[in-house]
Amino acid sequence: MAGNTWGTLFTVTTFGESHGVGLGAVVDGCPAGIELSHEDIQQALDRRRPGTSRYTTQRQEPDQVEILSGVFEGRTTGTPIGLVIRNQDQRSQDYSAIKQQFRPGHADYTYQQKYGIRDYRGGGRSSARETAMRVAAGAIAAKVLAQKGIHIRAALTQMGAVKAPIQAWSAVNENAFFCANPDAVEPMDALIRELKKQGDSVGARIYVEALGVPVGWGEPVFDRLDADIAKALMSINAAKAVSIGDGFDVVTQRGSEHRDEMMPDGFQSNHAGGVLGGISTGQTVTAEVAFKPTSSISIPGKTVTTDGQPVDIVTKGRHDPCVGIRAVPIVEAMMALVLVDHFLRDRGQNADVQRTEL
Amino acid sequence: MAGNTWGTLFTVTTFGESHGVGLGAVVDGCPAGIELSHEDIQQALDRRRPGTSRYTTQRQEPDQVEILSGVFEGRTTGTPIGLVIRNQDQRSQDYSAIKQQFRPGHADYTYQQKYGIRDYRGGGRSSARETAMRVAAGAIAAKVLAQKGIHIRAALTQMGAVKAPIQAWSAVNENAFFCANPDAVEPMDALIRELKKQGDSVGARIYVEALGVPVGWGEPVFDRLDADIAKALMSINAAKAVSIGDGFDVVTQRGSEHRDEMMPDGFQSNHAGGVLGGISTGQTVTAEVAFKPTSSISIPGKTVTTDGQPVDIVTKGRHDPCVGIRAVPIVEAMMALVLVDHFLRDRGQNADVQRTEL
Amino acid sequence: MAGNTWGTLFTVTTFGESHGVGLGAVVDGCPAGIELSHEDIQQALDRRRPGTSRYTTQRQEPDQVEILSGVFEGRTTGTPIGLVIRNQDQRSQDYSAIKQQFRPGHADYTYQQKYGIRDYRGGGRSSARETAMRVAAGAIAAKVLAQKGIHIRAALTQMGAVKAPIQAWSAVNENAFFCANPDAVEPMDALIRELKKQGDSVGARIYVEALGVPVGWGEPVFDRLDADIAKALMSINAAKAVSIGDGFDVVTQRGSEHRDEMMPDGFQSNHAGGVLGGISTGQTVTAEVAFKPTSSISIPGKTVTTDGQPVDIVTKGRHDPCVGIRAVPIVEAMMALVLVDHFLRDRGQNADVQRTEL
Amino acid sequence: MAGNTWGTLFTVTTFGESHGVGLGAVVDGCPAGIELSHEDIQQALDRRRPGTSRYTTQRQEPDQVEILSGVFEGRTTGTPIGLVIRNQDQRSQDYSAIKQQFRPGHADYTYQQKYGIRDYRGGGRSSARETAMRVAAGAIAAKVLAQKGIHIRAALTQMGAVKAPIQAWSAVNENAFFCANPDAVEPMDALIRELKKQGDSVGARIYVEALGVPVGWGEPVFDRLDADIAKALMSINAAKAVSIGDGFDVVTQRGSEHRDEMMPDGFQSNHAGGVLGGISTGQTVTAEVAFKPTSSISIPGKTVTTDGQPVDIVTKGRHDPCVGIRAVPIVEAMMALVLVDHFLRDRGQNADVQRTEL
Repeated sequence: MAGNTWGTLFTVTTFGESHGVGLGAVVDGCPAGIELSHEDIQQALDRRRPGTSRYTTQRQEPDQVEILSGVFEGRTTGTPIGLVIRNQDQRSQDYSAIKQQFRPGHADYTYQQKYGIRDYRGGGRSSARETAMRVAAGAIAAKVLAQKGIHIRAALTQMGAVKAPIQAWSAVNENAFFCANPDAVEPMDALIRELKKQGDSVGARIYVEALGVPVGWGEPVFDRLDADIAKALMSINAAKAVSIGDGFDVVTQRGSEHRDEMMPDGFQSNHAGGVLGGISTGQTVTAEVAFKPTSSISIPGKTVTTDGQPVDIVTKGRHDPCVGIRAVPIVEAMMALVLVDHFLRDRGQNADVQRTEL
Repeated sequence: MAGNTWGTLFTVTTFGESHGVGLGAVVDGCPAGIELSHEDIQQALDRRRPGTSRYTTQRQEPDQVEILSGVFEGRTTGTPIGLVIRNQDQRSQDYSAIKQQFRPGHADYTYQQKYGIRDYRGGGRSSARETAMRVAAGAIAAKVLAQKGIHIRAALTQMGAVKAPIQAWSAVNENAFFCANPDAVEPMDALIRELKKQGDSVGARIYVEALGVPVGWGEPVFDRLDADIAKALMSINAAKAVSIGDGFDVVTQRGSEHRDEMMPDGFQSNHAGGVLGGISTGQTVTAEVAFKPTSSISIPGKTVTTDGQPVDIVTKGRHDPCVGIRAVPIVEAMMALVLVDHFLRDRGQNADVQRTEL
Repeated sequence: MAGNTWGTLFTVTTFGESHGVGLGAVVDGCPAGIELSHEDIQQALDRRRPGTSRYTTQRQEPDQVEILSGVFEGRTTGTPIGLVIRNQDQRSQDYSAIKQQFRPGHADYTYQQKYGIRDYRGGGRSSARETAMRVAAGAIAAKVLAQKGIHIRAALTQMGAVKAPIQAWSAVNENAFFCANPDAVEPMDALIRELKKQGDSVGARIYVEALGVPVGWGEPVFDRLDADIAKALMSINAAKAVSIGDGFDVVTQRGSEHRDEMMPDGFQSNHAGGVLGGISTGQTVTAEVAFKPTSSISIPGKTVTTDGQPVDIVTKGRHDPCVGIRAVPIVEAMMALVLVDHFLRDRGQNADVQRTEL
Repeated sequence: MAGNTWGTLFTVTTFGESHGVGLGAVVDGCPAGIELSHEDIQQALDRRRPGTSRYTTQRQEPDQVEILSGVFEGRTTGTPIGLVIRNQDQRSQDYSAIKQQFRPGHADYTYQQKYGIRDYRGGGRSSARETAMRVAAGAIAAKVLAQKGIHIRAALTQMGAVKAPIQAWSAVNENAFFCANPDAVEPMDALIRELKKQGDSVGARIYVEALGVPVGWGEPVFDRLDADIAKALMSINAAKAVSIGDGFDVVTQRGSEHRDEMMPDGFQSNHAGGVLGGISTGQTVTAEVAFKPTSSISIPGKTVTTDGQPVDIVTKGRHDPCVGIRAVPIVEAMMALVLVDHFLRDRGQNADVQRTEL
């Protein structure tokens, strides 16, 4: 495949540039008969939409999705679901700077070299705007998973030095940072204000978990559930690290501590993060992902022009001081896409197997 | 695909169980005309072979690979390369314990539930023995990459609390831990001896880098180079976390610090780990991966039988106190498989593009 | 993959139903830098557009394609090309009949059984209207191939008993039947008029050839060039048979007659149709495909209702008496999609091979 | 994928050359728990084995298959099944002729050009010997299908001018031609003897049908059941044409004749060959395939050397005067591979759909 398709049975192909005509996706392989409304998708998009808080980019995009196919009388038909969002607020910028220059930390240079041409407007295809379609597709996946009793939730657990360990999941949608920790809201707000003053940005950490995943999903040895989660999360713009369960902490753990003992009433711990041998255990699937600080900042930096001349650059535009914030719904979406695809793959091969979970 | 194949153009399909007849792999899509000898593959296998040091499992497996096809008069022919290793030392164990019990922290339970049947001998398909074929296939990939001037190297940089930052790459093959730090050998040796006494195990961290990767490899938006590296490394047995470049450290970094500035003589730093927007930058590609402590330890643990009864288990057998050690050649192999596949994919789509690296 | 994607490196994913909001496609993996205008695609669509002659369906669809992404300043950027056509004339019909009944010879019954739900309007996804997107994607493929000096052309060579052997390729676009034989136009016209009077339909045969294909394309043993051509052509609505070169005539041929002898100036014949061992020979690639008579006829037929009750059915609507006619541009498009994908695949694996054609 | 893998969920990857060390295959994605013995596969291989009758090549190959993995205690485990056949009789030939010359009608020239190197011994990878592994894999597929009540059978229905319409399926295994028509055996025998005298060869036609296929298999729009059958059959060595149902006869049919009317007791005819809209109808799936006469004949022919010099060539060796004969079990195998993959794919997406066949 050419790189813009996710999945084996439940596939998502996205297209579109930041400042082109629009964005779109094709969701193929969705089971038929799933109730799916425009609102199901729109609500998910509204969560990640730019311009909704002062902490994120001020670009005003209504992100109104249109369902072009695959849904009939409120239910999926098993045929491909075509989705389109038209860009609205894409004409307001002056791109003369980045047309001739490679922004450091961005994909300007790599796209130019790889393809010999690039749509430089707003980063073109490399913009995180593409992730809107992941969220839209993820909303469809979430509907399928909900029928199986599976629920996915993510939260910002760290922004710069400010940590926000999970306290109350109910808090996530009550603050602009998607953090499940009311005490962290004020320090995060202070950090963002400081960053805006400095014209700088900061990284973030997101925790995600999937509740209700049954035992048996994941296709060893390469398409392990955890391997596909790693790829899915690392494929999000600005992601630099991914972990499952205890993650890098396992380096200093002992086997006697890490192994999750089993009792007739179930596993006694979940260091593994719900995956053993690449297959879900029936426990909660847990993962973390780190997002780098965006390079779109107003502190001048050194770079070169497309002609190879040195130049100082200041990235103008309406950018997030912490791109990790808006990544929360995207992380949930990618987790949903991984799970639904493995659900269908496992069912295809093993529908006849009788399973008795702990 | 059914899970046991890696890659899009340069593909590797592995098969085989720990204590079955043997292991094998098919490498398909390898460019023709590459010089390839039995020794090229055997040398790579010998590096990861069990029984070679007192720090790793004492199972005696010569791991003699046989090339069944795809090579003619010392060169690859462009047709699939079939490889087989016959198991030799697989009959010496008593598996009555794990036949009826699920070892905690192992894939016994998940395989049994997923498939309704499992080859319990030595973990069957879930055994790390499968990775021998990854190393064999990786040796072929490395030959292709070497022609392009690309070299991959990995080292153990931490075992438990003992850190081994890269000091001298030349040291890696001079100690049994694959660590590039002579000062760490003695503490690691002490730790292993302590673990053996305790019957316990410990986790590890491996650093890997690819030198000479040109700009332009990686297929956004899903098949980014870093996303595929994340999947490849996470697909290795016992891996729990993967990072690119600065990894989780980016959470606390500022954008002004993280972005790698560019000058006419090249990038001024490499926080990104050689990938921007999912495409290689032409810098060294760097990654890290964490391996959990193996659950095969002699300290008794709680588990259930296949009938759901509680039982204490002690994992007998010849196991590594730190499975991360032998993962070093496997990590190198997976990195090679990722790179060679992206090389061919990029060439397929973009062979006509003129590139001028910094 | 879920069924609506063609190709490995140059991929096409289509979506859309006959009477839904619209149709679309994503072309992924197209080489960057190809000149591509709206007109390039629109012209191809206009050739297959309904309502253009009295021999084909009178549905009035302007089939105006919109390019949503992947093209910048008149050239492809290497990123996915999103295409959409909005349906215009889809509301004029009464579908109460086919809502409750399965039209014989159509996919009503199979879609209903497979998915448990179907968009019955105009056949929904199973309508040949989907092929508009194949033609659009094929136009892009043809641009890539043209750069390599490859030209594809097809013609209707038989309609019912009326044969139209290739006489003059220039005639193809000068008659409404896409036949390369001016003498056949009058008999074909008479046949269509007779069929309209009878309310019946007839089958057709199409010949297609690709000129300028170099030696070396095709990936044995499964993804042979001829195997992929067979799949591509058989995947067109109403196709029932596909042949390469001499096709079914080879059954009665002798080896001494069939083998294409070689001389220093090249092959002495082309019974093979330009493919040996699944790889192009450098000769013209030739194929034929048979299209069944459409089942959308006004002669009453026996069928069952969705409740399993027997009923007589008459298919109303604006249908082609010979669907094979409009298949000519679709056949060309599918041949282009096969060839461009194999071009990229071969280049990916074998770009370093020096070739010297006969 | 690199060309040597068939399928999406149930995949088969083959490797091996005619006169190399051996042949092999990996069957991945096979459902677990299927009873599978060495004999199941060996019996299928024995049917297509060379040296079994005077009508086919006299090469003596026991074709003893070894199962290396994926089967435990007589049942499949859901893990990849590795198969190997070692070549035995491969050293007896003198290949100096074809080393320096391109046999007309063979793949010598195309492999040499594509890869720049070829294993010329016995045709190397392009030899029909590769199909042994298809038969082995097909035997596994057939076991899975048998559990669903599906049975596949094929017969030679024409050799040169000698037609052998299906009379009695029981006859197929009672004559050396795999024909279901006792009356045709004598004329076929005479034709073979004549061909041997002349040193020539002849083409053949094979009919194949799958009984018991339920409604609902096939993934429109590209991966239609009939499209995949077309690809599968055309991917067999020497195949030049494939048809479904009435095949090329549809060209002269009327819609009123071709459409298969439906009654409460089922379809009234089967012109479609059991597929409508790319999805199985629940009727018998029928197809035909044409095989060319082999170019391995002893009548001298014109060709060129690898240096481009003209030369007369006589193909020595132990060749079949009609390669179509031995293709019968291969055709069955490929049909089985297509069906089992579509079974799993359909189940993956649509296991929840309630179906009520006619």
